[in-house]
Amino acid sequence: MAAAGRVLVYGGRGALGSQCVQYFKSRNWVCAGSGRDGWVASIDLAENEEANASVVVRATESFTEQAEQVGACGDGAVLAEAGSRCGGARDIRNRVHCLLRGKRRWVTAEVGRLLGEEKVDAILCVAGGWAGGSAKAKSLYKNCDLMWKQSVWTSTISSHLATKHLKEGGLLTLTGAQAALSGTPGMIGYGMAKGAVHQLCRSLAGANSGLPSGSAAVAILPVTLDTPANRKSMPDADFSSWTSLEFVAEYPDDVRPIMQAS
Amino acid sequence: MAAAGRVLVYGGRGALGSQCVQYFKSRNWVCAGSGRDGWVASIDLAENEEANASVVVRATESFTEQAEQVGACGDGAVLAEAGSRCGGARDIRNRVHCLLRGKRRWVTAEVGRLLGEEKVDAILCVAGGWAGGSAKAKSLYKNCDLMWKQSVWTSTISSHLATKHLKEGGLLTLTGAQAALSGTPGMIGYGMAKGAVHQLCRSLAGANSGLPSGSAAVAILPVTLDTPANRKSMPDADFSSWTSLEFVAEYPDDVRPIMQAS
Repeated sequence: MAAAGRVLVYGGRGALGSQCVQYFKSRNWVCAGSGRDGWVASIDLAENEEANASVVVRATESFTEQAEQVGACGDGAVLAEAGSRCGGARDIRNRVHCLLRGKRRWVTAEVGRLLGEEKVDAILCVAGGWAGGSAKAKSLYKNCDLMWKQSVWTSTISSHLATKHLKEGGLLTLTGAQAALSGTPGMIGYGMAKGAVHQLCRSLAGANSGLPSGSAAVAILPVTLDTPANRKSMPDADFSSWTSLEFVAEYPDDVRPIMQAS
Repeated sequence: MAAAGRVLVYGGRGALGSQCVQYFKSRNWVCAGSGRDGWVASIDLAENEEANASVVVRATESFTEQAEQVGACGDGAVLAEAGSRCGGARDIRNRVHCLLRGKRRWVTAEVGRLLGEEKVDAILCVAGGWAGGSAKAKSLYKNCDLMWKQSVWTSTISSHLATKHLKEGGLLTLTGAQAALSGTPGMIGYGMAKGAVHQLCRSLAGANSGLPSGSAAVAILPVTLDTPANRKSMPDADFSSWTSLEFVAEYPDDVRPIMQAS
């Protein structure tokens, strides 16, 4: 296991996240050709049964509470005590449920407890969503709130996880949006959230950002992803112009040679 | 009153906000030279006793709750019923307290109820703050949370207020930061929040953003403001290189001729 590629996928239960989990599980990302499968953990609101491990997060109104659930700042001692890597320990209050199953699938609520001292090769934050509306929209507040939770919270938590659990020379990917390179008057909340993600990526690339030595932070800037939900909401669109989930899932493989050459 | 300049200052109790309240109260912004004082309302966590009116907001963990307090999306009927423009109506549950005093100073919890059908000439969002820290910092989550609440929540609410209460040809100013024009690895949360504010401003300037016809959205991008708090935290800095609060408070006067000429 130590030689195999280890990947965390934040949003691993979504359409894109599930694709990433499948792809990296079937692929020994670090030691291609070794014939060994990869190890992938999903972080999401529900378990991804295809992942080797799932960190199950419960929705909350408080960012600090959400973030501490996934991976405490500092040493995570409090939640680490509540979760356990094996056995039937249960703490209903924290909804930490830790199950050992036949296929070595872990379900826990804290990344630090899951990984221990082992580092991962990549953290892919593919959580997100879309909501439209101008500044005048009745849905403005609700949609801004949703966008920050789906994109900004998850990207921030992924970045902090990378400072603690990513290998030197590892890869962190965030999910931005091409639209947020200019004004987004018809999707105010979405634009703000993605603008914040772009800024986060620029910051992580700077000196002393806290990322491990030699690692890279990269944001993907999709236009429209070819998901079932997008096909349903835009049935008359030209699907062939959309970006396939496979393309995005395989993208870290395109980045690695560049990282290794630099 | 109808002919005088009417200004809303979000963050009107802070160092910069208090300066803005003073300046606009002493100045008839729209009808300069008419000899009439301006009318200024402050929105903040506490009352600004110099303002003509204060909208007092209570801190909350939920953005939608915070936003609905200040000015409900839609018609704001629920809080409008709870608040009242005169008399001693009191609703402890909503902490809506409405006081009529000798100097016609209103304290309420909802902008819609305060203004009724009257529009304002400008909305200045000068709420904000600063917090440092890399992605690795133990304070990351706490500081990100604070920055979003102080800058992103207030800017978003101000923008929605502008779609409802700003005059045609009026001015909305937001507070960005020069630092967020590039990566901010040593102040991750601050950079993300200000990046989101910059994106919001770009979006508001676009077609169909929801702002009234002929109005302008402008972001100021300070480096360091000359506040007592900043002097205290950086006692050895060259204060003469900092931007004075007076300069920022008077800035809308510099913008108006440009708006009127365009």
